[in-house]
Amino acid sequence: MRHRKIHVGIGGASGYAGGELIRLLLQHPDVQITYLSSHTYAGKSISTAFPGFAAHHLPPLEEFDVQRAAQKTDVLFLAGETGFAMQVARPLLEAGVRLIDLSADFRLRDPAVYAQWYKREHSAIDLLDEAVYGLPELVSHSQLREARLVANPGCYPTAAALALAPVLAQGWVEPESLVVDAKSGVSGAGRSKFGLDYHFAELNESMRAYGVPTHRHTPEIEQMLSDVAGRVITLTFTPHLIPITRGILCTAYARLLRPLTAQELTLHYRHFYQDKTFVVVRDAGDFPATKHVAGTNYCHLSLTVDERTQRLVVTSVIDNLVKGAAGQAVQNMNLMLGLVESRGLELPPVFP
Amino acid sequence: MRHRKIHVGIGGASGYAGGELIRLLLQHPDVQITYLSSHTYAGKSISTAFPGFAAHHLPPLEEFDVQRAAQKTDVLFLAGETGFAMQVARPLLEAGVRLIDLSADFRLRDPAVYAQWYKREHSAIDLLDEAVYGLPELVSHSQLREARLVANPGCYPTAAALALAPVLAQGWVEPESLVVDAKSGVSGAGRSKFGLDYHFAELNESMRAYGVPTHRHTPEIEQMLSDVAGRVITLTFTPHLIPITRGILCTAYARLLRPLTAQELTLHYRHFYQDKTFVVVRDAGDFPATKHVAGTNYCHLSLTVDERTQRLVVTSVIDNLVKGAAGQAVQNMNLMLGLVESRGLELPPVFP
Amino acid sequence: MRHRKIHVGIGGASGYAGGELIRLLLQHPDVQITYLSSHTYAGKSISTAFPGFAAHHLPPLEEFDVQRAAQKTDVLFLAGETGFAMQVARPLLEAGVRLIDLSADFRLRDPAVYAQWYKREHSAIDLLDEAVYGLPELVSHSQLREARLVANPGCYPTAAALALAPVLAQGWVEPESLVVDAKSGVSGAGRSKFGLDYHFAELNESMRAYGVPTHRHTPEIEQMLSDVAGRVITLTFTPHLIPITRGILCTAYARLLRPLTAQELTLHYRHFYQDKTFVVVRDAGDFPATKHVAGTNYCHLSLTVDERTQRLVVTSVIDNLVKGAAGQAVQNMNLMLGLVESRGLELPPVFP
Amino acid sequence: MRHRKIHVGIGGASGYAGGELIRLLLQHPDVQITYLSSHTYAGKSISTAFPGFAAHHLPPLEEFDVQRAAQKTDVLFLAGETGFAMQVARPLLEAGVRLIDLSADFRLRDPAVYAQWYKREHSAIDLLDEAVYGLPELVSHSQLREARLVANPGCYPTAAALALAPVLAQGWVEPESLVVDAKSGVSGAGRSKFGLDYHFAELNESMRAYGVPTHRHTPEIEQMLSDVAGRVITLTFTPHLIPITRGILCTAYARLLRPLTAQELTLHYRHFYQDKTFVVVRDAGDFPATKHVAGTNYCHLSLTVDERTQRLVVTSVIDNLVKGAAGQAVQNMNLMLGLVESRGLELPPVFP
Repeated sequence: MRHRKIHVGIGGASGYAGGELIRLLLQHPDVQITYLSSHTYAGKSISTAFPGFAAHHLPPLEEFDVQRAAQKTDVLFLAGETGFAMQVARPLLEAGVRLIDLSADFRLRDPAVYAQWYKREHSAIDLLDEAVYGLPELVSHSQLREARLVANPGCYPTAAALALAPVLAQGWVEPESLVVDAKSGVSGAGRSKFGLDYHFAELNESMRAYGVPTHRHTPEIEQMLSDVAGRVITLTFTPHLIPITRGILCTAYARLLRPLTAQELTLHYRHFYQDKTFVVVRDAGDFPATKHVAGTNYCHLSLTVDERTQRLVVTSVIDNLVKGAAGQAVQNMNLMLGLVESRGLELPPVFP
Repeated sequence: MRHRKIHVGIGGASGYAGGELIRLLLQHPDVQITYLSSHTYAGKSISTAFPGFAAHHLPPLEEFDVQRAAQKTDVLFLAGETGFAMQVARPLLEAGVRLIDLSADFRLRDPAVYAQWYKREHSAIDLLDEAVYGLPELVSHSQLREARLVANPGCYPTAAALALAPVLAQGWVEPESLVVDAKSGVSGAGRSKFGLDYHFAELNESMRAYGVPTHRHTPEIEQMLSDVAGRVITLTFTPHLIPITRGILCTAYARLLRPLTAQELTLHYRHFYQDKTFVVVRDAGDFPATKHVAGTNYCHLSLTVDERTQRLVVTSVIDNLVKGAAGQAVQNMNLMLGLVESRGLELPPVFP
Repeated sequence: MRHRKIHVGIGGASGYAGGELIRLLLQHPDVQITYLSSHTYAGKSISTAFPGFAAHHLPPLEEFDVQRAAQKTDVLFLAGETGFAMQVARPLLEAGVRLIDLSADFRLRDPAVYAQWYKREHSAIDLLDEAVYGLPELVSHSQLREARLVANPGCYPTAAALALAPVLAQGWVEPESLVVDAKSGVSGAGRSKFGLDYHFAELNESMRAYGVPTHRHTPEIEQMLSDVAGRVITLTFTPHLIPITRGILCTAYARLLRPLTAQELTLHYRHFYQDKTFVVVRDAGDFPATKHVAGTNYCHLSLTVDERTQRLVVTSVIDNLVKGAAGQAVQNMNLMLGLVESRGLELPPVFP
Repeated sequence: MRHRKIHVGIGGASGYAGGELIRLLLQHPDVQITYLSSHTYAGKSISTAFPGFAAHHLPPLEEFDVQRAAQKTDVLFLAGETGFAMQVARPLLEAGVRLIDLSADFRLRDPAVYAQWYKREHSAIDLLDEAVYGLPELVSHSQLREARLVANPGCYPTAAALALAPVLAQGWVEPESLVVDAKSGVSGAGRSKFGLDYHFAELNESMRAYGVPTHRHTPEIEQMLSDVAGRVITLTFTPHLIPITRGILCTAYARLLRPLTAQELTLHYRHFYQDKTFVVVRDAGDFPATKHVAGTNYCHLSLTVDERTQRLVVTSVIDNLVKGAAGQAVQNMNLMLGLVESRGLELPPVFP
C-alpha cells in the first residue's frame, strides 16, 4: 500500500449505483472519496441527493469535468448512463486515471454487437481490446490487476453467468437447451427513469415480464458463457420486474447430457468456486432468497435436478446494486490495486 | 332459472379461497349463500374471520356437518385443505348436493399419481372417474353441465395450461423443451400456514424458488396438457414466491418445431380462445402485469418468439384467488347450472 | 327510474379516480357509460390506459369537449386536476348536465380560502353558493337530491370528518385539542405525478410526513367540522405517505370535556351513524385495518379513551379511491338521481 | 484499548435484534463475538437461522447457560424476550460480566409500574437501582461508563424522547397537550410472533393502530421525558403497524406556551444535539423518511410549527433494529468500554 489512501471518484454519483459506491467506499479502509460528479445535483451537497449521507463528510457534487476528475483521482468509477463512458474514457486514461465503468460501454468486445443491441455506434472502438470484463470469479485476476479500464458487468449477466459457468465449463449440458428466467427488483432500472413504469401504485402488488427477447444483457451473458464454454453459446433470456427494491433472482435451466445427481453437481459447483469469497454454494434444494444477500457482495446459489426431464435447475441470487454493480466494481478496484479482492467488502447482510 | 335462488354453501369459508367465494357469490344475481363452515371460527360471525364483511348479511360459521350442509345447499364449494373433500364427497353426493372441490383431491385421475405426489392414499378412488376437471376453456362444457362433482383446478395449472394449450394442441413445439417458470403471490399458500416462511419481515423485499422439482401441481399441469396434446407431456415446473398478495405470472418456454412468427402465433392463440370470455390474448410482446387482472376472473396472455433460439415464450397472468380458485369455481358452478359461464363474474379489475 | 339507463360520463377518465369510476359504474345497474375523456390518451382505447378493461365495452377516450360531453351525458363526473372544473362547469350546467366534481374547485365556500390554500384565484365564484358538499353522512340528502353541482369531498376530509363529527356535534371535546394524524397510500397523489417522490425504489420500505402544516385538505376538514360543531373549528392536520397503494388511516385526537368511557362513546357513534349504510362503528379498541375496506365504499371506525390523559382517540379507515373519491361520487350520484344511496355500491372488500 | 479484543456474546442471537447485533459487532474493530445462544436453534450453525451469515465465521448457537456465558464473554447482550434478563442478570453480574439488556426488564425504575404494564411481578427488584437507562443522547455518559447493567431503551421511546426532549427541557410546551403518534415497521414485533397478525398477505397493503392506549412503551417514554422535563409527564401514545420491515416514524405534537417559530426551534434543537453524532436535525419542514436511516444508528428529525394552532409538530425517524435496538446497544457498549460512542457504528444507510 502507498502511504496515503487511494483517491477515488465517482462520475454519476447521484444515481443508485453511485450512492451504493459511496456507501461501500466510505467503509473501505484504503481509499478516500475525493471527487463526486452529478449533472442533476451539480453544485449541491450529496445530502441533497441522498439525505442519509447527511452525517458523512463528502465532497460536493460537481458537473463532470475530465480535467478535474483526472486531477482529483487515482481511480474513477463511471456510474453514468451507457454512452457516457465511451466519450470520456480516452482523455481520462491518458491523464493516468484508472477507470471502472459500470455502464455497458466496454462490456461487449464486438462493436457490431454493441451497435445492434444498443442502437448506437460505439465511439471508442480502439479501447474495446484493452477493456477487461470484470467478473472476477470467471476472469483472470492478473488481467484485472493490470487493467487500466475495467468493464464492470451487468447485474443480470453476473447472476446468470455464475449460475451456469460450472456446467458449461465442463460441457455437461445441451447448449440449445439454455433458458435464463430472471427476476429483478426495481432499482435495477436506475434512478432517472420515471413515468408509470416505476410508479409505486402501478408496480406494487404486481409483476410482469419485459424486454423479451431483446434485453441488452443477452449478448453480454452469451459472451461470458461462450468464453467459459469455449464455444458459441446462444440462450433465451427473459427478465421480469418484481416489486422489490433490491435483488436479482436468476433461475437457469439446462438439459443434462449425462445423468448427474444434484449432489454430484453441488460438489462440482463447490469445487469450481472453492476459492471464491463471494460465491456461496448452498445444499442442493436449499434455494436462496434475495434477502439473504441484501446489501452484500455475495452470490448464493443452489441447484436441483429434475430427473423426470433430465433438466438442471440452478437459482442464483445477488443484490443487483452490490454484486450486480457497485460491490463488484469495488472488488475490481481491489484487484486492480493489488489488494485482496474482498478488502472492505465482507459486509454481512442487512436482514430482515 | 328456478323461482328461488340457488342455495350455495362453502365448506372452509374462513380461508382465502372461502373469503373470495363469499365476495363473488354475494355479487352473483342467481344465488344465495345459505351455509358457511369453518373449523377455526365455528360458532362465530363471518366478520370475526373477515372484518370487511361486517356490513353484509351472511350465515354464521359452523363446524362442518354433512347433514346440515346437504340440507342447506344445492351446490356446495369445498374450500378446505386437500384430504378433506375425499372424506365427505360421497355422502354429500348421495344426499343430492352438487360439489365443486377447490382442493386437489379429485384433480388427478390416477390414484397412484395422487399417492406419489401428495404422499397419502386416496380414499375415494371410485369417485375419480366421475369427477370432471373444471378448466372450462379446455374441457367440454356439456361434461361440466352434467357433473355432480367438479375438481376445480389449481392456480398454477390454470395459468400454465392456458399459456401452452394452443401450441400443444397443434403439435408445434418440442415436448421435451417445455419449461414453466411460475411466480406466485403469497395468498396461494393459504391462510392457515404460519411461521417464518410467510412472515412479512422475511418475505417482503425478497423472493425465492421453492418446491423444485417436486411441486404437486406438476402432474396436474402435465395431465391437462397431455389431454390437449393427445400424447404424454412431461415438463419442468419451477414455482417462485414473490412478495405480493395476489397474482400468478407464468412464463412458459417451448422450442418451435416450425418457423412461426410471434404474429402468426398470436393470431392462432386468438382463434383458439375466440369464444372464451375470460382469456384475453394481447398483442405479441405486450406482456401483461398481474395487476391488470387483480380481483378478476380473467387470464391475460402475451407471447413472443426468440428467433435466435427458435423458442416460444408465453406469459400468462391470473389472480390466483379468482381464476386460480374461487372465480373459476363460480364459473364451473354457472356451467353446472346451465347459466352462461360469465354470469356474475365479469367484474373489472381493482386497479391500481 | 326512467326507461333508459342514465347516461354518465367521466372527464379525466385515465387517472386513478377516473379508472375507479369506470369500475364502479360498470357494476351499477342503472347507468351506462357514454362518454370518457382523457387528454393523455385522447383517441385511444381505454385499454391503453387500463389494460385490465380490455374485455369491457367502453367508449373511446377523447379530448374533453363541453359540447360533446353535454350531448352525451345526463351526469358528468369531473375527475381532472383541480382548476379544470371551474373552467367548464358553467357551460355544462347551462347545457343541463348535472355535475359531480371530484377536484377541490367547489369544496370551499369562501373563495378567499381557496385562493389562500390553492395559490390561485377562483374563476367561478358565482357557482360556489350553489355547489353542495357531498359528504352524504353529514349533509342533507334533500340538498344533494336537488343539486346541479356536487363538490365531492377530498379523501382525508372524508376520513377525518367521519371520525370526529359525532363528538363535535355534541360539544364533548375541547376544540383547541384537535389533532388529525393521517396516513395515506400512494394512489392519493394521482396518476400524473412522477418523479422520485413516487418512484417505487424510493417509497417502498419507507414512510414520511409531508405538507405539514400547509396541506390543502386542512380548510376543507375545518369547514365540514365547523358546520357540524356549529362553531369555528381549527385543528392540526398532518398527512403521511405510506408505502401502500390504496387506503387512508386517520387517527384523530381530542381531549374530552366530560368523563365519558369508550363504551359510552361507541354507543353514541353507533347512534349517530345508525342509518348510514357505509359507516361501520366497530367495538371500542377493535381498530380497523385499511385492508378491511379495500375496494369498497365503507368507512370503518373504532375509538378508545386514554383515561390517563382524558383523550379520545378515534381511528377511521377508508379506501381513498372509493369512499375517498369515486365511490363517494357514485353515492352522490345515487342521491342526485333519487336512488337509494348504496345502489350498486355494496361491493364487499377484495381481501386479502 | 486492551491488547486482546473484547469478548462479546449474545443471549437470544436468532431473533431480529440478535441478528442485527451480529451484523454490527462483525464490523466493530475492537470486539470478537465469542458466544451465541438460541433456544430455537440450539446446536445449529448461525446460518440455519440467518443464511446470510453463511460466509462469516461465528460460534455455533447453544442453549443459554449462565456459566458458559460468563466464561466466554466480557460483555453480554441479552436479546431474549422480556422476562428472561431479570432471571439471569444477578449470577452473570456476580461472575463479572457486564450486561446490556435489550428487553424491557430493567428500563422502568419503579417495579410497580413494571408490574402494572407488563402484567407480571419483577423478580430482580434489587438491580433496578443499579441499572442505567441507556439513551446516550439524554443520559450521563459517566454513568454509562461505570454501569455493570445497562437497560437498552425500546424503539418507540428512543424515537419519541429524541423528538420531544429539547422542548421539554426548556418548559416551552404544555405538558397536557402531548401526543405521540408512532408508525412502526413489522420487525419491531420480533421474529417469534407468528399468526395472521404478521402474515404477509394480511399485512401488506394495509395499516392499523394497535395497543391503544395500553402499549408498554408508554411509561418508558414518560419516565425519560419526566427526567428531562424535571416534572411528571403524561402523554397519549398511539402506535401503528405499517407494512415495511424496518423503521419507526414518530410524529409528536405539543402546544407551544410561547410564540416560537420553526426556525428558532430548529436552531434550539441543533444546539441541544450539537455534540451528538447520531442525531441529525434537518431544516424545518424537511421531513425525513425512514429509508434515510435504514440500517444505520442515526435519528433524523425535523419540525414545523402550525401557527394557526400554536402547535409544534416534530417528526423523528430511526431504524427500529439499529438506533431502536442493536445499534444503540453497541453505542452503550462503546461508552461502557470507554470508547468513543460512534466506534464501529458510523455505517451509512443502505439506500434505496
